Amino acid sequence: MRFKFLLAIFLSSSLAVSAQHTDSLFLRKIYDEALVNGKPYQNLEYLCKKIGPRLSGSANAQKAVDWTKKLMEHYGFDRVFLQEVMVPHWVRGEKEQAKIIAGNQQISVPVVALGGSVATAKNGLTAEVIEVQGLQELKTLGEQAVKGKIVFYNRPFDPRFIETGAAYSTASDQRFRGPAEAAKYGAVGVIVRSMTEIIDDYPHTGATSYEEGGNKIPAAAISTKGANQLSALLKQKGAVQFYFKQNCQTLPDVLSYNVVGELKGTENPNEFITVGGHLDSWDLAEGAHDDGTGVMQSVEVLRIFKAIGYRPKHSIRAVMFMNEENGHKGGTKYAELAQKNNEKHIAAIESDEGGFTPRGFSFNAIQPQLLQKINKNWKSLLEPYEVDRFINGGAGTDIEPLKATVPAVILIGFRPDSQRYFDLHHSAKDVFENVNKRELELGAASMASLIYLIDQHGLSF
Amino acid sequence: MRFKFLLAIFLSSSLAVSAQHTDSLFLRKIYDEALVNGKPYQNLEYLCKKIGPRLSGSANAQKAVDWTKKLMEHYGFDRVFLQEVMVPHWVRGEKEQAKIIAGNQQISVPVVALGGSVATAKNGLTAEVIEVQGLQELKTLGEQAVKGKIVFYNRPFDPRFIETGAAYSTASDQRFRGPAEAAKYGAVGVIVRSMTEIIDDYPHTGATSYEEGGNKIPAAAISTKGANQLSALLKQKGAVQFYFKQNCQTLPDVLSYNVVGELKGTENPNEFITVGGHLDSWDLAEGAHDDGTGVMQSVEVLRIFKAIGYRPKHSIRAVMFMNEENGHKGGTKYAELAQKNNEKHIAAIESDEGGFTPRGFSFNAIQPQLLQKINKNWKSLLEPYEVDRFINGGAGTDIEPLKATVPAVILIGFRPDSQRYFDLHHSAKDVFENVNKRELELGAASMASLIYLIDQHGLSF
Repeated sequence: MRFKFLLAIFLSSSLAVSAQHTDSLFLRKIYDEALVNGKPYQNLEYLCKKIGPRLSGSANAQKAVDWTKKLMEHYGFDRVFLQEVMVPHWVRGEKEQAKIIAGNQQISVPVVALGGSVATAKNGLTAEVIEVQGLQELKTLGEQAVKGKIVFYNRPFDPRFIETGAAYSTASDQRFRGPAEAAKYGAVGVIVRSMTEIIDDYPHTGATSYEEGGNKIPAAAISTKGANQLSALLKQKGAVQFYFKQNCQTLPDVLSYNVVGELKGTENPNEFITVGGHLDSWDLAEGAHDDGTGVMQSVEVLRIFKAIGYRPKHSIRAVMFMNEENGHKGGTKYAELAQKNNEKHIAAIESDEGGFTPRGFSFNAIQPQLLQKINKNWKSLLEPYEVDRFINGGAGTDIEPLKATVPAVILIGFRPDSQRYFDLHHSAKDVFENVNKRELELGAASMASLIYLIDQHGLSF
Repeated sequence: MRFKFLLAIFLSSSLAVSAQHTDSLFLRKIYDEALVNGKPYQNLEYLCKKIGPRLSGSANAQKAVDWTKKLMEHYGFDRVFLQEVMVPHWVRGEKEQAKIIAGNQQISVPVVALGGSVATAKNGLTAEVIEVQGLQELKTLGEQAVKGKIVFYNRPFDPRFIETGAAYSTASDQRFRGPAEAAKYGAVGVIVRSMTEIIDDYPHTGATSYEEGGNKIPAAAISTKGANQLSALLKQKGAVQFYFKQNCQTLPDVLSYNVVGELKGTENPNEFITVGGHLDSWDLAEGAHDDGTGVMQSVEVLRIFKAIGYRPKHSIRAVMFMNEENGHKGGTKYAELAQKNNEKHIAAIESDEGGFTPRGFSFNAIQPQLLQKINKNWKSLLEPYEVDRFINGGAGTDIEPLKATVPAVILIGFRPDSQRYFDLHHSAKDVFENVNKRELELGAASMASLIYLIDQHGLSF
């Protein structure tokens, strides 16, 4: 009995070792294909340079839909299809103008309208500025101090966070909720310090949101250099006026699409592992890191599997979500359709933190025991590629709605190095030239590796 | 007895937990200082933009010596001093010219003389080209095939390596030994494919070495695009000629210096922990990542300790080594003086792989058990900063000689992310603009953290 028991342990551990060895060899195959024959860099170049900015509802967004569909058809994926989705259509209009007016001094500063903002009057808006460090200070100051003024939200990124996403998270309420809150106290406009730590002349846009029935006041982001200048003048002069002019507007919703490519599962074709990014981008640049890298890596995952002849057990989907930036309509639609079509989703991975060197993956709200098991089983396999940091954390805006419609799904965020992302994010600097070929390829290979492991072994252990 | 024994275990583990807690708080203090008040970025800007390229023996190298000495004096380190060292003085002269001559076609291509190379004749060198993939193929072909020709070493980086340093290591024999070997078979010149994976128009220089008494033939690096073009034409046409002209020369040796800053140890002032990088650089750019970042991070380590009021037990030195690129004279001198002055060196850390996001440290040739202990004791402390990858591996060219003169020293290499380094390394692209402020600061903080732990707990466990 005892001997049989020991033999069983020996055999099962031998099998485990041999499975590990098979997996290890297979991961090496994935990386070799990605690093030797990788295509995401040239595909990204096309998306950035031949198509360019692709804000939801724009002609360029439609071009990106058509082209990525063709690309995946060209790669011969088993199925390539579109999912219809109505998206908001906000347009910036003419380039914005802004200046600080301090006594006789007039200083031009770079601003960009926040996504979703209303325009100023045709000849612009001029008012006295009140600087606040955030929503709490606004509330404390109240209507008496704020009424008739332009509220200037100037709380910077906290540099002490190691992960820059955390600095973004704790600063971005100023942009997203700041204008709606300021309007409640009678403010006539809002200027928000750009959501970045870097000090330069590039303003960073991003979505803001008004309240249903609330007053809609124009809102713009100012470059960090401009914000420092404005703040210094306020300290120096006491009272300073600000002028800005923007003629952005929201047009009627437009029919657009998620683009989906699929490799059919050989054993469980109605069970899915999804990998995706968002195809739309802000209008100021090429949406290279946000999120051209994510969509091109997702396509690459499927291309790698086909190239090395891997036939997955489960169906694997690359999803180019539409409208992450200003509405999340594509992600919501994907989740709705998953429920409607009774699709079982095992896992969904999103790459939307840039195409930098991969560090690991964050698993959204999973049990500590499961995370421990993932670490125990897979950490050593991914260690040679330095992408073995598995943590609990956020996953991605586009895949989040899936949790509500397919509760069993495990949501996973791809975690690249975060240091450079917010230097570029939502600004005119988010261009192809700032993407590194190898970093992009390593990210695709790491996602393909994790998907292979999930496809082979599941996530229930 | 049993009770006492348990109590002892309890007390000692409590003490361990409490020491861990103290260390953890202290590391947070180091990072806060680095990220909030960090100075390496502005110091690097000065070194790159106000001084610039600083090849050994040049006037700029001397300016860099004078300025870093003043900088450390300004920070009020306990002792700042120079170590005299004679260094080679090679100069490039006029910009090189080169073209591929294929029948009637003449195609200009970018080349740079290799460091240490001799000049061509005044009107240049023209000869038929023979392409080889490395030293082995050269040997196989032999004198009959090689004599009178220009040998073109064209083995590219192997993209399958995850760490790019490994690709460099396996390709760079072509540059370092290629010209001396080719001369043995009667070659009249050498062209080497630039040591990078990226395909562009920038040639990358680097040291080559002739053999004592061997024939010295002129040698240059060609950009990767130029190399691909030359190789394609060779395949297409069979016979192709190459022309290049360079008038570099080696002048008499020059007196130069290592620059050393020191915080005096409170308990063991004659026991040292050294952190350093090299102050010299190649002449084509600003030596930003190679190795301005390393020297400015080393100064920053001491500045952080002073700023947060840390009085180390052992003496901590920031060393700006001279002449890493083409002679290693500074590192050799430092090791000689350590022996002569009977200094006990506990550990030496070098940062010479760029100022990118830190990943960990490599410990040179240490016992596996010691590496295990380092991991067991310190990994969790550095994990929040994502710089907890401790491996066995190379340390750094400047600190290597110390092992021979002070055998007890532990040599440690700072390991930043490696993906972008060889895109820039030794080329005109190695400029300040390609350095990221936060990445640089995180590197300095990670080195300060490791030095703090070594200073507090030693490396003997």
